[in-house]
Amino acid sequence: MAQKKKLNALVEVLGPAKIPSPLQNCRFITANKTLTLSIPRELLDEKGNGPEEIICEEAGPREKIYFDAPKTKCAIVTCGGLCPGINDVIRSIVMTCHHNYKVASVVGIKYGLQGLIPQYGHELVELTPEAVSEIHEFGGTILGSSRGHQPVEEVVDSLERLNINILFMIGGDGTMKAARAIAQEIQKRNLKIGVIGVPKTIDNDIHLVSKTFGFDTAVEKATEAIRCAHTEAMGAPNGIGIVKLMGRESGFIAAQATLALKEVNFVLIPEVPFSLHGENGLLVNLEKRLKKRGHAVIVVAEGAGQELFQDLGTDASGNRILGDICQVIKEEIKKYFASKNIPYTLKYIDPSYIIRSIPANANDRVYCGFLGQHAVHAGMSGRTNMLVSKLQDRYIYLPISLVTQKRRKLNPDSNYWSAVLSSTGQPAKML
Amino acid sequence: MAQKKKLNALVEVLGPAKIPSPLQNCRFITANKTLTLSIPRELLDEKGNGPEEIICEEAGPREKIYFDAPKTKCAIVTCGGLCPGINDVIRSIVMTCHHNYKVASVVGIKYGLQGLIPQYGHELVELTPEAVSEIHEFGGTILGSSRGHQPVEEVVDSLERLNINILFMIGGDGTMKAARAIAQEIQKRNLKIGVIGVPKTIDNDIHLVSKTFGFDTAVEKATEAIRCAHTEAMGAPNGIGIVKLMGRESGFIAAQATLALKEVNFVLIPEVPFSLHGENGLLVNLEKRLKKRGHAVIVVAEGAGQELFQDLGTDASGNRILGDICQVIKEEIKKYFASKNIPYTLKYIDPSYIIRSIPANANDRVYCGFLGQHAVHAGMSGRTNMLVSKLQDRYIYLPISLVTQKRRKLNPDSNYWSAVLSSTGQPAKML
Amino acid sequence: MAQKKKLNALVEVLGPAKIPSPLQNCRFITANKTLTLSIPRELLDEKGNGPEEIICEEAGPREKIYFDAPKTKCAIVTCGGLCPGINDVIRSIVMTCHHNYKVASVVGIKYGLQGLIPQYGHELVELTPEAVSEIHEFGGTILGSSRGHQPVEEVVDSLERLNINILFMIGGDGTMKAARAIAQEIQKRNLKIGVIGVPKTIDNDIHLVSKTFGFDTAVEKATEAIRCAHTEAMGAPNGIGIVKLMGRESGFIAAQATLALKEVNFVLIPEVPFSLHGENGLLVNLEKRLKKRGHAVIVVAEGAGQELFQDLGTDASGNRILGDICQVIKEEIKKYFASKNIPYTLKYIDPSYIIRSIPANANDRVYCGFLGQHAVHAGMSGRTNMLVSKLQDRYIYLPISLVTQKRRKLNPDSNYWSAVLSSTGQPAKML
Amino acid sequence: MAQKKKLNALVEVLGPAKIPSPLQNCRFITANKTLTLSIPRELLDEKGNGPEEIICEEAGPREKIYFDAPKTKCAIVTCGGLCPGINDVIRSIVMTCHHNYKVASVVGIKYGLQGLIPQYGHELVELTPEAVSEIHEFGGTILGSSRGHQPVEEVVDSLERLNINILFMIGGDGTMKAARAIAQEIQKRNLKIGVIGVPKTIDNDIHLVSKTFGFDTAVEKATEAIRCAHTEAMGAPNGIGIVKLMGRESGFIAAQATLALKEVNFVLIPEVPFSLHGENGLLVNLEKRLKKRGHAVIVVAEGAGQELFQDLGTDASGNRILGDICQVIKEEIKKYFASKNIPYTLKYIDPSYIIRSIPANANDRVYCGFLGQHAVHAGMSGRTNMLVSKLQDRYIYLPISLVTQKRRKLNPDSNYWSAVLSSTGQPAKML
Repeated sequence: MAQKKKLNALVEVLGPAKIPSPLQNCRFITANKTLTLSIPRELLDEKGNGPEEIICEEAGPREKIYFDAPKTKCAIVTCGGLCPGINDVIRSIVMTCHHNYKVASVVGIKYGLQGLIPQYGHELVELTPEAVSEIHEFGGTILGSSRGHQPVEEVVDSLERLNINILFMIGGDGTMKAARAIAQEIQKRNLKIGVIGVPKTIDNDIHLVSKTFGFDTAVEKATEAIRCAHTEAMGAPNGIGIVKLMGRESGFIAAQATLALKEVNFVLIPEVPFSLHGENGLLVNLEKRLKKRGHAVIVVAEGAGQELFQDLGTDASGNRILGDICQVIKEEIKKYFASKNIPYTLKYIDPSYIIRSIPANANDRVYCGFLGQHAVHAGMSGRTNMLVSKLQDRYIYLPISLVTQKRRKLNPDSNYWSAVLSSTGQPAKML
Repeated sequence: MAQKKKLNALVEVLGPAKIPSPLQNCRFITANKTLTLSIPRELLDEKGNGPEEIICEEAGPREKIYFDAPKTKCAIVTCGGLCPGINDVIRSIVMTCHHNYKVASVVGIKYGLQGLIPQYGHELVELTPEAVSEIHEFGGTILGSSRGHQPVEEVVDSLERLNINILFMIGGDGTMKAARAIAQEIQKRNLKIGVIGVPKTIDNDIHLVSKTFGFDTAVEKATEAIRCAHTEAMGAPNGIGIVKLMGRESGFIAAQATLALKEVNFVLIPEVPFSLHGENGLLVNLEKRLKKRGHAVIVVAEGAGQELFQDLGTDASGNRILGDICQVIKEEIKKYFASKNIPYTLKYIDPSYIIRSIPANANDRVYCGFLGQHAVHAGMSGRTNMLVSKLQDRYIYLPISLVTQKRRKLNPDSNYWSAVLSSTGQPAKML
Repeated sequence: MAQKKKLNALVEVLGPAKIPSPLQNCRFITANKTLTLSIPRELLDEKGNGPEEIICEEAGPREKIYFDAPKTKCAIVTCGGLCPGINDVIRSIVMTCHHNYKVASVVGIKYGLQGLIPQYGHELVELTPEAVSEIHEFGGTILGSSRGHQPVEEVVDSLERLNINILFMIGGDGTMKAARAIAQEIQKRNLKIGVIGVPKTIDNDIHLVSKTFGFDTAVEKATEAIRCAHTEAMGAPNGIGIVKLMGRESGFIAAQATLALKEVNFVLIPEVPFSLHGENGLLVNLEKRLKKRGHAVIVVAEGAGQELFQDLGTDASGNRILGDICQVIKEEIKKYFASKNIPYTLKYIDPSYIIRSIPANANDRVYCGFLGQHAVHAGMSGRTNMLVSKLQDRYIYLPISLVTQKRRKLNPDSNYWSAVLSSTGQPAKML
Repeated sequence: MAQKKKLNALVEVLGPAKIPSPLQNCRFITANKTLTLSIPRELLDEKGNGPEEIICEEAGPREKIYFDAPKTKCAIVTCGGLCPGINDVIRSIVMTCHHNYKVASVVGIKYGLQGLIPQYGHELVELTPEAVSEIHEFGGTILGSSRGHQPVEEVVDSLERLNINILFMIGGDGTMKAARAIAQEIQKRNLKIGVIGVPKTIDNDIHLVSKTFGFDTAVEKATEAIRCAHTEAMGAPNGIGIVKLMGRESGFIAAQATLALKEVNFVLIPEVPFSLHGENGLLVNLEKRLKKRGHAVIVVAEGAGQELFQDLGTDASGNRILGDICQVIKEEIKKYFASKNIPYTLKYIDPSYIIRSIPANANDRVYCGFLGQHAVHAGMSGRTNMLVSKLQDRYIYLPISLVTQKRRKLNPDSNYWSAVLSSTGQPAKML
């Protein structure tokens, strides 16, 4: 048996952990023990290449820690778009810091990294157990958030000035990259400040993370919009319901919601190009479906069909500007059916922020609770420049650099996507 | 004491009711007994004029009925946009016809009045108790619906050909007008076919009807969108959340949802004109609110601010084309805050069909059940050219002509609107 | 036309209202103007006797008020069992007092009237707008509640000592009686303290109040339990689902939930006695139903069938001890079907507090908002010994004594109950 | 590095698979390829012993199958108690059989294995795609279920007589044991009938299955009851809320719901014995909690504290009769606080069937969809005497005998349980 390609994924530490953990009633993770996980096919690149196994550290409490809890000051910052469960992660970090480790203080930084840049004038928030005890009942983030870059030097200046020992950063791909830059600046200055990431993205497109928190909740809510589109489509002769869902680069929400509510006839995602016209195109297939059943539901991830647009450049934050694919589809349907003199009724639903601003469901709550706890265990143990992930049902620690190498995408050559196609009945290729 | 102005609102009958009702265990409404109801202030015109009392018939079963149940064939048609509870009304009509009166048959007409025009080729649906027993668990209408006019002569031709005795029409203002035209054509031909309306409109804008079915459910759902807008607004520095809600001519959903969820700072409805610019305008007030609290939620009924647009004409169905007020507001906010160099984050939510395609809540279900029952009692008793209403907690029968005279609007001079203003804190006049 | 019997229902005042109201943008209710409402049949006694019309005051703001707002101190107390919407009423009172009238202070009394008895040692809570701004998202009462009597003299001693000008009491029948006793003691001492009641009861059994707040929400939740009972009954051969619902003296929740979810086959309420045995009894009818359809759902109000028990006396609070009717039904079903050798599967569901501890739905929220506002308008105008009611879609003020005369009960001779029977298909009499 | 202990878990086949699969657009699982999974600690025995790795087959479609689809007749049976998602599994099996493999027929067996015993007289149901297209919107099972044993010979007689090729059995531990006996009888008779299990248990206590379907949904619903208990406890002086949850042998629902809603102060599960009395007992700890915070929530799995009862024997189906631990706790609380003269208010909530009779949430729906598909892939490939499992995020096939060896239990020595303790704040040992 050939040796499998392995990927070493051990994380950095600020220094040796020498202080006995104050935790009780827990199973400490043996120091230096590693886990070997096979990398799931869906997480590989499109050709199925790459390492087959990953060697990493299991998340959890360590018997010896790096920081002296009663003298430790932690900070939490939330960046980027909202997602169900952010408040649960905040709450879990605060409760674990205070109740389990009994740290000196946890402060909240307002409005993302802006809160560490003095010119914005945002004040810090003291995060006591009392202050966060009920925040999980509300969507969003009690700390507020913001987008865009902040100068790394000023951020680290503030951390120094505020005597922060551990910075917990909850955010997406951009935030994790910022976390890495901050950790590097900290190292350059030879400071002993840990930077721990908790990956957050509604699109579920983070490499080496099976499922990001809030995804389940968002899918649940997205199915409501699909059910409405189905009802509307059924309610009119040749009724067409179109639902736009989040998913700039990856179609996970669209695909999962399609699997969850079996009423979708076409799902369009960024990973699978399609044509509108031509004998295999969407329009011909839509016409066939209407002839056969009298109604149709189309689910569109916002980043689908970008191959149909010219390059639209990037916005101020450096994100690619997306063409409005739903608008194009609506217009082309109009032209196509007009040219064939086929009457139809089209209802367009864009639930937008409704699926991301809600409180987390029970499953995501439990997940967020563990993410927060493991983030604190990591931080107290002196780990840095890393994030907490869940892979194959296990919580692990991974270096940020590994995770930000690429985005996770839905593999169209997987049985997962086959199941989606099977559920919709759409052709595997509409090109 | 001066005599109050009274409005006579008795309904037409097809002929004398001579057949004993087959109903048991019910309290029959005494023949010819009328109710005198005071007309609520909110239902008056803008100047508060009009009759003060209305004399009408209480809805309910009569001891003597007009149609011989075992020989009676009923038909149900649903027209116009969807609304929570249509299936409940259908179910109630079918169950009451079959279980209580034991009529010969109830048929469903597909896709609105199209289903009575042979060229469309839609087939009838036999509506047995088994066929409808679980439809209340689904939104929409199992019969489908359509918009637009159909020739009254052809409709009545079909009713004759199909031997329909009673036609139940569930629809909005346009449908009620069509019902009246159908009833008149029937009378011209001297046929004995009853036409009974059940008023349906998500906008709650039907004259002399306190609250249309589905309204409560839609408001409940609309509050979800507002809560999300609030969460988004809280989640960013100078966060602005805008929610667009239904309400072409009347702002009831926007106003009621504002009262139900106390997080709205500005609500804009068709009945209350406003300026964007100027020292009393929306933009200045929005800026003040942001300065004070750092976030704001604006709820906009789709028909608000039409005074800011030129006349855009009417669409094919004769409905006024509305200017896109939310688009204008978004653009003007952008210009205004750019000119003042104030950063902000705006999140726009348009729940659209999500609030109307859902199943009815418990309250609307009970309401729909009674509407359906009273529609059947009316039809079997030989009443025609009328609709079922609920006014001051009582179910009554009203002539269609009375109800279609005008649209119900929210009275800005009422304590209801004062309560809305008080909840938002917005100025009474933004002009 | 004979003169109708009228009931005078004007409320007491502490003294003449001479101070101009600070309210703006509202329609003041004309002083001394009364409303004449016909009393709905359902609110009459069992024989349909009693006054036919009621002359009362419309709720709302008055142009002249009694208390000088900046010097006025209000208190809120919540008593008895929980109910959806209590926090909404509290919030509305606080917001109206502070934002509209700008009173000096509103304090919350903890754990019902216990909070006014020094020996319990409960502290007052200052109720600022900030403190209550999000409480409507939570069920229950932020003030806590308690049952049982407290000495009226001590209560009034505390009100004097605390310089309370208006006491808002949210509670049920017992609380309203206590409110009346407190108002009388206040009058005896010639104090100028207003006592304003907001009637609260999950059972909806308050005389001259069409629907108590929280009822809609409770019914909505109760339908979930019925749906589960239906699912369980369908899931087994001869499946029987029994759901116990609240309703000690009145079966409104059971009846309304039955109308809302059409899956109930037998509903048992306190107002309609029934036999278990005999050819018309429940057991024979249940057997017939099972033979016909293979499954059955029974909804039981907790106070149903008390005629089957001997008098069980009263508890410490003076409430009648109820026999456990569901237990009896379960046992008798067991014996009966065993004797006939008929296998069956019985699933018993008691949702209990689940239907009353939840946050209010949108409809109840709007209702609670108005109740709170009208309570404050009443209090500030110097009214006392009264409560806020809604009758025939209008908010009115009623003397407490009138309302506590009797309990509201469901009228089995009404078309409402006919509709329930029609929905279940059960015999009108099971005796 | 020492060789790890491995467990061979390959499944039986009816014979060689020679027929090309009719499936398109899917990734076939390579024949004879196995997966090696490490066994998660939580799945080990209490001492952490047992094999460390399991060698098994990945679930999914095979390029060569055993049955000739157009001649294949499948049957589905659902046994035991209800669970969210059963209808989703049925729907998925039916859709995959018909749409993907295009089998001759799928029949539904009514009321569990009773439906295969002629004397009961239950008729088969033809399960077409149309018949099942909307069943996922309803809880329960459209086939009905039953408990108790049926004679294996008669079951196999029926399968022969009905020409069933593949029997899909959805059920719990007992059903899986029955499936195994049926498969053995089939083998004895040398028949070619596959028996494929889909494990179902609300208690999530099946060995070598990470999470059974419906568990997430049940936990979500259970949190509602806990929230109500918390609200009730907060609403009274010394308020105690007790919630009883399912979990005869394993406390997963109680533990997971505790993690999901952070308002629980004591959680009692079968795996962790406790005392009521004594200085470390529940009552002393409860008293402390009340003194500190004034309210407490206790969540009790129904099988907790059985060590406090004498052996109560087994019921007709052979299940251990459980002592009513909640009743005991309520009584002992009463005695204890009476003896100390401490007033308190106790509210007891037993949501019972409400958490299991509801439709599945989105996450469970996706899961059920895959379980159904993989069951069909297994059946068509000729596998038998096996079930579909999900372990470490992968769908696998396991021999039934392996899974029924023991029940899965929550490991009190895991960090999962530590997290629960940390969330409640209860002592690790109350003995």
